[in-house]
Amino acid sequence: MKFNEAIENVKPIDQAAADAAQAHMDQQTKPQGSLGRLEEFARRFIAIRGRDDIRKKAIFTFAGDHGITEEGVSAFPREVTPQMVYNFVNGGAGVNALARHAGADLTVVDIGVDHDFEELDGLIKNKIGYGTDNFTKGPAMSREDAVQALEAGIALAVKCRNEGVDLVGTGDMGIGNTTPSAAIVAAFSDLSVADVTFRGTGIDNEGLKRKIAVIEKGLDVNQPDPTDPVDVLAKVGGFEIGGIAGLVLGCAAVGIPVVIDGFISTAGALIASELHPNVKDYIFAAHKSVEIGHTHMLQRIGQEPMLDLQMRLGEGTGAAIAMTLVEAALRSYREVATFAEAGVSEAGD
Amino acid sequence: MKFNEAIENVKPIDQAAADAAQAHMDQQTKPQGSLGRLEEFARRFIAIRGRDDIRKKAIFTFAGDHGITEEGVSAFPREVTPQMVYNFVNGGAGVNALARHAGADLTVVDIGVDHDFEELDGLIKNKIGYGTDNFTKGPAMSREDAVQALEAGIALAVKCRNEGVDLVGTGDMGIGNTTPSAAIVAAFSDLSVADVTFRGTGIDNEGLKRKIAVIEKGLDVNQPDPTDPVDVLAKVGGFEIGGIAGLVLGCAAVGIPVVIDGFISTAGALIASELHPNVKDYIFAAHKSVEIGHTHMLQRIGQEPMLDLQMRLGEGTGAAIAMTLVEAALRSYREVATFAEAGVSEAGD
Repeated sequence: MKFNEAIENVKPIDQAAADAAQAHMDQQTKPQGSLGRLEEFARRFIAIRGRDDIRKKAIFTFAGDHGITEEGVSAFPREVTPQMVYNFVNGGAGVNALARHAGADLTVVDIGVDHDFEELDGLIKNKIGYGTDNFTKGPAMSREDAVQALEAGIALAVKCRNEGVDLVGTGDMGIGNTTPSAAIVAAFSDLSVADVTFRGTGIDNEGLKRKIAVIEKGLDVNQPDPTDPVDVLAKVGGFEIGGIAGLVLGCAAVGIPVVIDGFISTAGALIASELHPNVKDYIFAAHKSVEIGHTHMLQRIGQEPMLDLQMRLGEGTGAAIAMTLVEAALRSYREVATFAEAGVSEAGD
Repeated sequence: MKFNEAIENVKPIDQAAADAAQAHMDQQTKPQGSLGRLEEFARRFIAIRGRDDIRKKAIFTFAGDHGITEEGVSAFPREVTPQMVYNFVNGGAGVNALARHAGADLTVVDIGVDHDFEELDGLIKNKIGYGTDNFTKGPAMSREDAVQALEAGIALAVKCRNEGVDLVGTGDMGIGNTTPSAAIVAAFSDLSVADVTFRGTGIDNEGLKRKIAVIEKGLDVNQPDPTDPVDVLAKVGGFEIGGIAGLVLGCAAVGIPVVIDGFISTAGALIASELHPNVKDYIFAAHKSVEIGHTHMLQRIGQEPMLDLQMRLGEGTGAAIAMTLVEAALRSYREVATFAEAGVSEAGD
């Protein structure tokens, strides 16, 4: 599915189905609304999927490198990106453990790692480049590459539709990728770079100052156009962020709810949401990241985080856990008896 | 196990085991601390249990009636308590669905319902009375009954220890029971009754005013002694709150982590924590209740809620979901590779 076709296919979610789902929950043996956000999760999932169960769950962790790491914005060396890809494929990372916990299949996508991988089970090779360019010196990638990254994500959403996946999760791996993510939220908002930039995987105060200056320079040099999300992605984004944006857009286009992970995934989801306003309704925001720019992104997307566990690992770890909350919500939806079935009196009887 | 024996058996948790667990997590392939509160859950579970897996999970939902419902403090009629007990036993309530989701066994305890139940699978009959007395006219129960309620809960903790249960969850059912719960937090704090009293299962403004007045009268008539938690339980508590308090105390005494549900369970946990300060370290606070008194209780207990899903159902529904987060934490602990195992470079390498 081409990029433009995906955008054209995004439809509003089925409000009548959402209302019918809520009407059922209002008859279940509990005070109305007392399952709180679980009711929202069930209502929205059902409105999107037209069913109340999850056959398959799939998490995609997109990996890419970043030219901006030349500027010293990360505490970890760049070779950690390919090392972690091997760790994912071998099942040893945080997202592997938590995907198993959630009963989700995990696929790693090399969309831009600075390393040539052999054929590996669980790895999709869809490399657009060996890392982006340093965006303090020009655009991170060409517009053509940005569209290609989006279409790589869209293709995975189509694959999920064809394989009966009912819930998708997003994840990222890329040393340096909180920097483009902060640049993206700054590009779309009136906030200063300092207001949306934080420590990533653990840089110190000096490092944070440098990171802010690097992003300010990148925005100044490139002048990304906030009314053109592809331009923002190309100029200050990343390959894995583009892949995530495409996956989120694609999920909306094919009608699959998508659980987005933390800061980097939300940067991708923000680009997708800016491409078509209805994308927002397909997004489940897994958790509140400790990155300060994250709240601004989610406000713009209009979704509340499901969890706040002070996590800052990325990879799709938050998405994996949040998927289990959607599962819990649907289980309640399917299995809780109605007042009539259980012979329980209602309020005010 | 008698009440006094339980108190004597509460030991500090094993700090050396907690430190060793954290040292392992610090070597796993992720930035240190990046799994946030999952690391806290794993660390604390391991320090309490001395193991890193959960063999069995058990949720206990204590049911009792309340004389205070005479004062019109609930939107639901009193007969809903026994009706919901049947619903639990038949598997049709919210906690049943969510306990199945969590892989936890659910047991319902009739500790004070105004109804004679037949023998039913999944129901423990341990009735102390047919509901408490109206605490605007004198104590809710005698001190002897309060101790008996506590010992009923302690006995279940001992049973769990003997059966290899590694994680316990608490839950409640009792029309009117947000009223004694608010009375308990008011009794232990300097806050006004209005500061800790909310709408329960959905009373209106007039009902809320009445509820506040009823609690103020109960505290005035009974003068519960905050330095004597059993006195507080007896004078303004409830049978199911006493059972929960005993279960929490018992879990601390036998060394089992206990996930407490929302407002009513936390009232029970607060009584247990006031009985011995080390009890607090065995408590996992499942979620933030919408009841305004809940935050005050948790501050006093010194635990942060794990989830905030705007739930207000009780029964153990929040505890069931929170148990899955402990499971996720332990899964990460067991399964994530170390930097050395995975050949991944560390920060600053």
